[in-house]
Parts: sequence; structure tokens; C-alpha cells
Amino acid sequence: MSTSTPTTPSPSSPSDPTTGPRHVLRVDAFPDATWDALRRAAVAHRHDGPRGADAATGQSLGLVFLNPSLRTRASMEGAAAHLGAHHTTLVPGDGSWGLEWEDGAVMDGDAAEHVTEAIGVLSRYHDALGVRVFASGTDYDADKRDTLIRTVADRASVPVINLESAWAHPCQGLSDAALLTERLGDDLTGTKFVLSWAPHPKPLPMAVPNTALRTAARCGMDVTVARPDTHALDPALIAEARSTAEAHGGSVTASSDQAAAAEDADVVYAKSWGGPLMYEDPAQEAEARTARADWRITEVLMERTRDGAFLHCLPVRRNVVADDAVLDGPHAAHLDQAEYRLHAQKALLEHVWNL
Amino acid sequence: MSTSTPTTPSPSSPSDPTTGPRHVLRVDAFPDATWDALRRAAVAHRHDGPRGADAATGQSLGLVFLNPSLRTRASMEGAAAHLGAHHTTLVPGDGSWGLEWEDGAVMDGDAAEHVTEAIGVLSRYHDALGVRVFASGTDYDADKRDTLIRTVADRASVPVINLESAWAHPCQGLSDAALLTERLGDDLTGTKFVLSWAPHPKPLPMAVPNTALRTAARCGMDVTVARPDTHALDPALIAEARSTAEAHGGSVTASSDQAAAAEDADVVYAKSWGGPLMYEDPAQEAEARTARADWRITEVLMERTRDGAFLHCLPVRRNVVADDAVLDGPHAAHLDQAEYRLHAQKALLEHVWNL
Amino acid sequence: MSTSTPTTPSPSSPSDPTTGPRHVLRVDAFPDATWDALRRAAVAHRHDGPRGADAATGQSLGLVFLNPSLRTRASMEGAAAHLGAHHTTLVPGDGSWGLEWEDGAVMDGDAAEHVTEAIGVLSRYHDALGVRVFASGTDYDADKRDTLIRTVADRASVPVINLESAWAHPCQGLSDAALLTERLGDDLTGTKFVLSWAPHPKPLPMAVPNTALRTAARCGMDVTVARPDTHALDPALIAEARSTAEAHGGSVTASSDQAAAAEDADVVYAKSWGGPLMYEDPAQEAEARTARADWRITEVLMERTRDGAFLHCLPVRRNVVADDAVLDGPHAAHLDQAEYRLHAQKALLEHVWNL
Repeated sequence: MSTSTPTTPSPSSPSDPTTGPRHVLRVDAFPDATWDALRRAAVAHRHDGPRGADAATGQSLGLVFLNPSLRTRASMEGAAAHLGAHHTTLVPGDGSWGLEWEDGAVMDGDAAEHVTEAIGVLSRYHDALGVRVFASGTDYDADKRDTLIRTVADRASVPVINLESAWAHPCQGLSDAALLTERLGDDLTGTKFVLSWAPHPKPLPMAVPNTALRTAARCGMDVTVARPDTHALDPALIAEARSTAEAHGGSVTASSDQAAAAEDADVVYAKSWGGPLMYEDPAQEAEARTARADWRITEVLMERTRDGAFLHCLPVRRNVVADDAVLDGPHAAHLDQAEYRLHAQKALLEHVWNL
Repeated sequence: MSTSTPTTPSPSSPSDPTTGPRHVLRVDAFPDATWDALRRAAVAHRHDGPRGADAATGQSLGLVFLNPSLRTRASMEGAAAHLGAHHTTLVPGDGSWGLEWEDGAVMDGDAAEHVTEAIGVLSRYHDALGVRVFASGTDYDADKRDTLIRTVADRASVPVINLESAWAHPCQGLSDAALLTERLGDDLTGTKFVLSWAPHPKPLPMAVPNTALRTAARCGMDVTVARPDTHALDPALIAEARSTAEAHGGSVTASSDQAAAAEDADVVYAKSWGGPLMYEDPAQEAEARTARADWRITEVLMERTRDGAFLHCLPVRRNVVADDAVLDGPHAAHLDQAEYRLHAQKALLEHVWNL
Repeated sequence: MSTSTPTTPSPSSPSDPTTGPRHVLRVDAFPDATWDALRRAAVAHRHDGPRGADAATGQSLGLVFLNPSLRTRASMEGAAAHLGAHHTTLVPGDGSWGLEWEDGAVMDGDAAEHVTEAIGVLSRYHDALGVRVFASGTDYDADKRDTLIRTVADRASVPVINLESAWAHPCQGLSDAALLTERLGDDLTGTKFVLSWAPHPKPLPMAVPNTALRTAARCGMDVTVARPDTHALDPALIAEARSTAEAHGGSVTASSDQAAAAEDADVVYAKSWGGPLMYEDPAQEAEARTARADWRITEVLMERTRDGAFLHCLPVRRNVVADDAVLDGPHAAHLDQAEYRLHAQKALLEHVWNL
């Protein structure tokens, strides 16, 4: 941290003054060679298992869940343990750790600590931080700029791994890429990836669909985003993903015809999201969402695919997002996908710690 | 899990396709030879201590408390650590992880995840799961069938250790058996075990009294269940325990005379419970319970015993369940009993992991 | 515990029947030689780092936060891990573990467990306990006698480390002493320490100012307590600290002139507190506190010092307690100070475990 004045360097900080710490905030944070190495490392971890690993003995991972999680917590703690690292997990209760995020604030209200000190101190106790923040759900521009996780990274003197922010979920993205690599091969060009919107009782945030799109694009897959016209993804994100996909031998298209999109797909990646409309006009979003219960993923849809894998980041609402017949059937790969969180996060920890 | 389709076997799962995982749902899950080996192993663990143990290095234990716990949590985490295993402890907050338990449910309500995925995923991250569920307190048949913990076990692809369910508490049972073995000898036939109902401000669930009865029965002790007639245990459970006791050289009787039951007892195991009446007629149960404040365990009662041990699973309400004079006096063995949780659970982990 | 009757000694308890466990309840718990060894050990830990340390392998630390904490939790878990020890952290939720503290109570109310059993059991699972309790905020005499943490220590059969009680915070005190040692030298006599009261929206407890005063006094520093007359510290504590300081070559004075006190100071230790007035007359305390917003620590104040270090135990409210210009400026040493929690607590664990 530039604002602190250590009387001597702390031995526990791996940050490099010339380049700064190796933050992992988005899947597109990595050069191609690093990305490919990471997804292959995750596949290797799945097959090698945990025994005898002590590469990170003496390292300490601090996990902070400003938005609660059970799956990410279990897999991240497991990843640290598999490498021999220590972890501390902090899950501030409702109201128990009101953080101030604004610079220059006069802190005479509820917030007892500024993010500058909170992250500054944790940077002294840990060799990397995994942090989950939340989407505002109301300020589209702030969510799109991912202001909270960027502020965390700015105040940290050790690497920050984004455990899901308003706009991105790189741990999920790398896990997905590893699962696709194992299932479809190391060269993913020419394979067909359908990101399908699905029904849900609530308007959900954008981190996962944004990340699934970016992930498939940088794997060079032929991506179709199937969604009702009311639930199109952010246009700038689509344009960026198209450019990324084309640079890697793939393509990005959008469609409002779910059945046609599924034709010959290698992957149907189901996910509900609220989209820009949830920020602009929540009532209209709710009405449009409720009217599209027929976008539920069915076994009839999956049979249109080319022995396609059904993926979902979980948790999944059965018989609302996808039918029991899909989740319990031959296309289901969502538990393998979830397992890859463990292996991908081991690869990410090795990356940020230069192991 | 039969419903998943791993593209390759996960190296972290110890489950055997021919027999399934080694679940520990009740004390009567074990053959006699295993049971005897486990209680002796627990005694040995108490005397050997933790140093140098790394038998389970690389193994991961997932603990899920759907009903909160401090004692079970501390002892289970300690047991894992003593063996060199990693653990993750998940304590879903109120409402933060509403699980759906019904097959075929259309999940458009509060529950965000089905137990099938929750346990399916945790089976991928961990090599065994310890799970605490709760009694309905209203559906006697469901509680007696122990439907929640059985569903958890059914959806798990790794061993499940019951950390207390509606009807059973095998970790407590094995701990109690080990304490009795240390105190009264390896051959427990001919020793007298009194399970005594005790007063309490609330109607309590049945897992502990059921388990204490089953434990003492399979140790071949002469068991007396002392309780007001309003608080008899389940008749089928009594019949089953009697059969078990007789097969092991012991006996089971019931009595509504606490003082007579305590005569020459080697053990007075105090516990309050609501019994079948709390399901059938809560108001009548409350009235009967309140009228029996004189069943409190006193030093006068303990002096009737044959230098008997006072046991209680804790937490215990002083001067309501038992007098200070008992808890602080020469018969008290409840802290030794609590300590045995640590040692018995080490033995259980070694069992489920085949160490 | 004198009230338990172990049938055999537990191998995990390091307590010595002649002297009792090595509790750490206050900074003045240590003889001078131990105190000096501990602050030097903390400095050495900062420079040696965590790798390869396994001095405490097989030891188990139980952490109990009856008042929540994130900083103390992260640093204490890290300290245990750096030494190779296991830890379990218990953070009872609101109302989930109502403890009874009174001897002889008839426990027919909300409290489900007596502190005697709670601490008695944890003493069987762990080799030391770190416990944070809370100030009553209303019973001055009870808070001054630190009754809760003393009761915990009394019921424990393993060493208890106070993680902040009503009246004392020895982990903070030792951390501060180590920071001062690193910054100002091993011999601290002749250096000037200013403990300055600061504004705050709430009346805060006394553990930190009391401990800062005691710490600086036993380091033999020349201490000035700068505070409005309404917020004087406890007179008996001042007298005790003066006696301690003089025995170590230092002095203690009080002043209501913050600017004069800061002149040529080596350290400005900022902290808000409610003081005796918050117990006697909360309305008057609030009025006096609100009227003193001008006691905020500014860079103008810091420039009066002799290149003085700004210290604060954190969390700190920016632009209320201290200006951004101080916290982000050249005098700031509060992050180094926070880092020392980790290193000082390693030294404390080595002390209580005789490593």
C-alpha cells in the first residue's frame, strides 16, 4: 500500500513494487499462454489429487465474503489446504462490519472501518486475499465498472482473487474452461457453446453470464447467446467478446430462438439473469421474465444437441431453471463443473504465488 | 452419485461402487467386531494424544451444521486436525441456504438449492461429510424414520457421519461407550446403566435418549429407563433395544421410580426429552414435564448408586436438570464424557476412511 | 478444573497442578524478564517469517468470540497456523449460546449452558483458549474487576489468552510494545508517548486506553494522557501506571491540552473512550464527547511531534478520529502496528505452551 510506511519490509508480502500484485479480477486478466497453462493445470490437478502437496506451506490465504457463499468457500478452503496453505475465512454478519468505500468520507455514520484499513491490514496477515463483493443491482454503471472489487484490489498489497463481483467471476470462468478442456479437448475451436438464459423467480446479477461469455470467447468457441430480446446482455460486452472470439478462431452471435440455438450444440450453459432491463425498469423486467417460464431447460431441448453437456454454475432451481430429467439425465455435467472449482482455484493460487 | 456422469473418476472419492460409502447414521450401523474395535480405539486415542498423527493427510472433511453446534464442531474439527486432515465447516445462517428436500419439487419458492446438488457438490470437495440436521418436532413418523439424514446419505458419494439427527446421535453413542469401557472395563455385561429422564424448561428431541439406550443395550449392560409414565420412550425402540441387550448378555427394563432405579447403579445417564407425547399433545406434555421438577438429579440420588458415574451429553442446565452438588461432586464424569467426543470421532474418521 | 474428576489425566492438558495454567489476562501479568523476552520475540517473528515453523504441531487453540472480531480472529488464526498448531474458532451467534455466568443459578431461563461446563469442555479439546468477552458498559465495578474474563480463566484447565475484555487487551499491548521496540529501540526510557483521546460517535470501552497506558508505563516511557477533563481515566489505574512507570525509569502525567502534549512526542496513540463518566452519567458523557470534535488528530498536530508515529488499534473512523492526511501521511504507523498482532500473538502462544 502506498499510504503505509513500513519501518521494515514485511516478509510475508509477495508484491513486486515494479508490477504490483498479481490480481485475478476477470478471466481476461491473463495473457493467452497463462490462460492455457491455467486450464491445463486445473485438469492435471483433478487427476493428480491432493496427497503430498505442500507447495504453499507457510502461505496464508485470507477469504472475505461480503456476500455469503457455501460452495465457493468450501472449494477455496479446500484448494488452499490441498497446497498446504493456511486460510482464514471472514464472513461479516449483517451489519457487523459496515465498510466505508468512499474516499474522503467523514465516517460519523454506521461504517466503523474504511476499506483502506480493512484491506490494508488483511494484506499484512495474508499472502493473498480472496474477496466476494456484491452487485448494487441499481447502479448499472458502477456495477459494469466493478467498482467494489477494483477498490479492494487497489488497497491490497497482496494478490486479490475475485470470488464473484458485480460483473465478473473468474474462478467460475477458469473452472468452466477446464471442464470444457477435459470434455471437448485442448483445442476448443469449432465447438459450439450455447449460453442460454433461463427462468427464475428473481432477477439475478450478471457476473456469471458475463464470465461464461468471455470464457467461451477466449477459448475460441462458436458462441450463441440465446435469450429473450428483453434480456440481451450488455452491448459493449457482446462486442468485446466477439472481438476476443474472432481473435481466437471463434464467433459470437445472439439469438432469441432457444431451440434453434441448441441444435448440434456441444454445451448448453444455462443461467438466469436480469440484464440491463433490471436496472432500467425492474417492473418490466419482472413481467418479461415471468412470461418466459417456457425457456426452462428440458430434456427435449438437450436432445437437439450433439451429445451436449448441460452446465450450470449452481445453485439451480429444479423444474424452474432446468427439469429433473436434465439434472438427473445423461447430459448433466454440472457436478463435474462444480468439482472443477476446487482444481481451478488450486491452479489460480499457484499462479498468484508463483509456485 | 448415480445421477451424475463424471467424465473421469474423481481421485478424491473413496466410495466403493459395490458397497457404497461407509455411512455412520446410527450406533447400530456397526457389526459387533467393528463396534468393539471402535470403542477400544477411542480409549487408545485418549491415552496416545495427537502428536505425530498424519494418517489422514490429504483427506478433507466437510462439516455441515443445519442445526448449530459448538461442542460437536470443536470436537469434530479437532478430530480431523489430530489425524492431519483438512476440514471446512459450513454453518448456513438463518434463511441463507434454504434447501429443498422433496424430490420432484418445482423450486419457485424460498429454497434456492436442492439437497441433491448441495450434497452432490460437497461430495466432490470432501472425502467424508459430517452433517447435523434437525428434528421436525411435529411429524413423529418422519422423525422416527430419520428422513433428513437418510436423504443426505442417499445423495452423498462419500461417507456421511451423522452429527445428530432427529432420531440418532452415533458420535455421542460411541463416545459414551468408550467412556464406559475406560471406567467399567472392556466387558460391560453385569453393569447397571440407568437412563434417567430429567426436568427441563423445553421439550427436547429424542436423538440422545434413543442413542443412549441403544448404546448401553449393545454394550450388554443391564439398562433401566427411569421416566415418568408420560415420558416413555418409543415402544418399538424399547423392544429393539431389549432384543439387542439380550443378544449381548444384558437387559432393558423401564421404571417410573427414579430412586429405586438408581439403587446400585454404575451409571446415571441424565437427559430430558419430550417423548411421543410432545408430538401427540404438546400442551399435555408441557404440563406433565412441569409437574416433574422433582426428577432433578441430586446428590442424594447419586449416593444410592454403586459409586456411580453421573453422565450428561451437555449442555446441562444447573439446578434444573442436575444440582450443582452433582455436577461439582465426586460422581461427575460429564467432562470426561465430553472429552471422549474428540477421541471417538477420531476413531470414526479412521473407520470411514479405512485408515 | 477442580470440579471435574478425570478417571485418567488427559494427555492434551499442559496445566501444572502446582502453579495452574499460564493465563494471559493483562499486560502486567508478566515478570519484567518475560515481558522483555516477549516483545523481542515478536520483533524477531516479524523478520523471520512463517516458513518451516512447526514448533506447535499437534497443539490445538480454541478461539471463542463472545464479542465478534475480524482483525483479532485473522491474526490469531494466522499465529496458530504459523506455528503449526490447529485452531477452532467459535463465534456464537446472537442468542445461540446464552451462557450463565453466576454460580448457584437455577438455570430455568434463556441460558442453556453454564460457563463452568462451556470452558471445562473446551479445556478438554484444546491446549489453550483465546477468549473475547465484552464490557457491561453499565457496571463500572464489574468491568474494572474484569469479572467475565476472570471467571473464564478460573474455570479453564488450560491457559487462557484474553482477546479483549472489559478492562484489558494484552494482545494489543504486547503488539504495541513490539512496534515501539522496533521503531524506537530496545531501551524505551526517555521516549515520549502521548495517549490522546479522540472524538467518536459512540462511547467506547476502556480496554484499549487502559492497556496502552499500562504498556507504555512498563516500557519506562514518559507518558502523557491527553484528554478533556470529562474523559479522565480511572484514578486508581493512573496511580498504578505511574508507579509502574517510575519503577522502569519513566513517568505518567495527564493533560487537557492536546497540542502541548504532542510537542516533541515520539508516539501519538489515538483512541476514543467513554471513561468513568459513561457509567455515571451517559447523557453528560455524550454531550461532552460531541463538544470535543476538535480533538480529531490532524497533520498539524502530528507536525508538532519529533517525527512521531501515529498509532491506533483500529478500526478507525476517518475524518472523525483522525484525518485522511494523517492516516495516509508520513507519520502513519497503524498498519505496522496491526501487523504486529500476528507476530506478538505467536510469541504469546510460544509462551503459554512453553515452546
